[in-house]
Amino acid sequence: MSAKYDINPKLTLVGAGPGDAELISLKGINALSSADVVLYDALVNNELLKYAPIHAKKIFVGKRKGSHSYSQDQINALIVDYAFSHGHVVRLKGGDPFVFGRGYEEVEYAESFNIETAIVPGISSSVAVPALQRIPVTHRGSSESFWVIAGTTSSRKLSKDLETAAQTSATVVVLMGLAKLKEIVAIYSRFGKGDLPVAVIQDGSLPTENIAVGSIDTIVEEVRRENILSPAIIVIGEVVRKNPYAEQQLKLENFLLN
Amino acid sequence: MSAKYDINPKLTLVGAGPGDAELISLKGINALSSADVVLYDALVNNELLKYAPIHAKKIFVGKRKGSHSYSQDQINALIVDYAFSHGHVVRLKGGDPFVFGRGYEEVEYAESFNIETAIVPGISSSVAVPALQRIPVTHRGSSESFWVIAGTTSSRKLSKDLETAAQTSATVVVLMGLAKLKEIVAIYSRFGKGDLPVAVIQDGSLPTENIAVGSIDTIVEEVRRENILSPAIIVIGEVVRKNPYAEQQLKLENFLLN
Repeated sequence: MSAKYDINPKLTLVGAGPGDAELISLKGINALSSADVVLYDALVNNELLKYAPIHAKKIFVGKRKGSHSYSQDQINALIVDYAFSHGHVVRLKGGDPFVFGRGYEEVEYAESFNIETAIVPGISSSVAVPALQRIPVTHRGSSESFWVIAGTTSSRKLSKDLETAAQTSATVVVLMGLAKLKEIVAIYSRFGKGDLPVAVIQDGSLPTENIAVGSIDTIVEEVRRENILSPAIIVIGEVVRKNPYAEQQLKLENFLLN
Repeated sequence: MSAKYDINPKLTLVGAGPGDAELISLKGINALSSADVVLYDALVNNELLKYAPIHAKKIFVGKRKGSHSYSQDQINALIVDYAFSHGHVVRLKGGDPFVFGRGYEEVEYAESFNIETAIVPGISSSVAVPALQRIPVTHRGSSESFWVIAGTTSSRKLSKDLETAAQTSATVVVLMGLAKLKEIVAIYSRFGKGDLPVAVIQDGSLPTENIAVGSIDTIVEEVRRENILSPAIIVIGEVVRKNPYAEQQLKLENFLLN
């Protein structure tokens, strides 16, 4: 494949942020404004497409229930095809493109065709979604570190890192982990951490945002009661107490349990 | 203290991103545009102050060598004083305000005076600075999680979490850790990880950006050779190999060592 005469093939990977359309960076908007093609994911706010020129192709390549979804290989191929046929491809991904976004695979594939690539980091949901619920991932006295873990790994199993994480005082943020919540709490229970606060946040930063707060012992029931669905972020650690509902909720639980 | 008749005291905590002025969010710019007072830190790009109205007070409260610096208590007091006397205080902090930014302490203090607070997350240097050096904090096959740790804790010691982190396969990102680099590599060496790749990045996302790449065994020397200074971010893990200079650098080291 070779580029047409007047076309400069380019890929810009852009992080769209957690969902709220105002949480994209200025650099991300600037990249969109010079896009010839935008390939966007399911977790991207569609409002952001307005920043791309009218003539630009906007192609949804995300995974949604019931609709055709593209494999990573197909997305890689689309990036390369469109870069050579149209020019500037903006790959718009939810959150930050390098936090479980498989963004680097796309960069590597494009570079193997000598396509110029650029990266515009995004606001990662792993930090921002807890923050918007008044849960700081770090806080003096409560947490000196935070550990971001994929709930579902490439082998479809729970990451082994969770076993280690449960034994530390790090704030643990699990992305794509709602389906494994029972397994996750079982690990923490095994290490005697039944009282540790947990929050599960769906659609963080969007009007449909919803949160369940509880402890390792109660969070599965709270998630069921609040009817929390994917995509959701799980935050585990003492910092969850900072959430305005948490203190009351956790006190109530203690009262009911004792 | 009580608010003047026509003043609505408010605090908005805004993450300014890693340094590049275009890496602030649209929401952050919008908050600045309605600021009456901006209190900004040393790691904030001063260009961002242009988004605040001309009449707004812009006050530097960061820590810089040789200049007077404000204590956290003084900053808290300024926030409250200015909110009551001027209205909307925007607290502009480098990176994300909840990633070792002590942002939540400021929110809690303001709320104790019944001041309305809002949070605008930022692009955290912990993810973005490695990304801009083509180091994805997560990558299929190399890293299923990343762990962000403060090099210097409130007790001025190295976080105990690093001892645990060195035994996992998580990508480890250390902020504010350059002064402890020797201690950090000593821990990894103890666990037989002398070959593990490490990058140290100064002034990430700025024109003055500089990087040193090596292994646990060699990074202290590489940092000295490249004259890397604080503020710098340390990234430890197999994903560092993705950096364009890393593969060559690490091969060279192997050649010289064997």
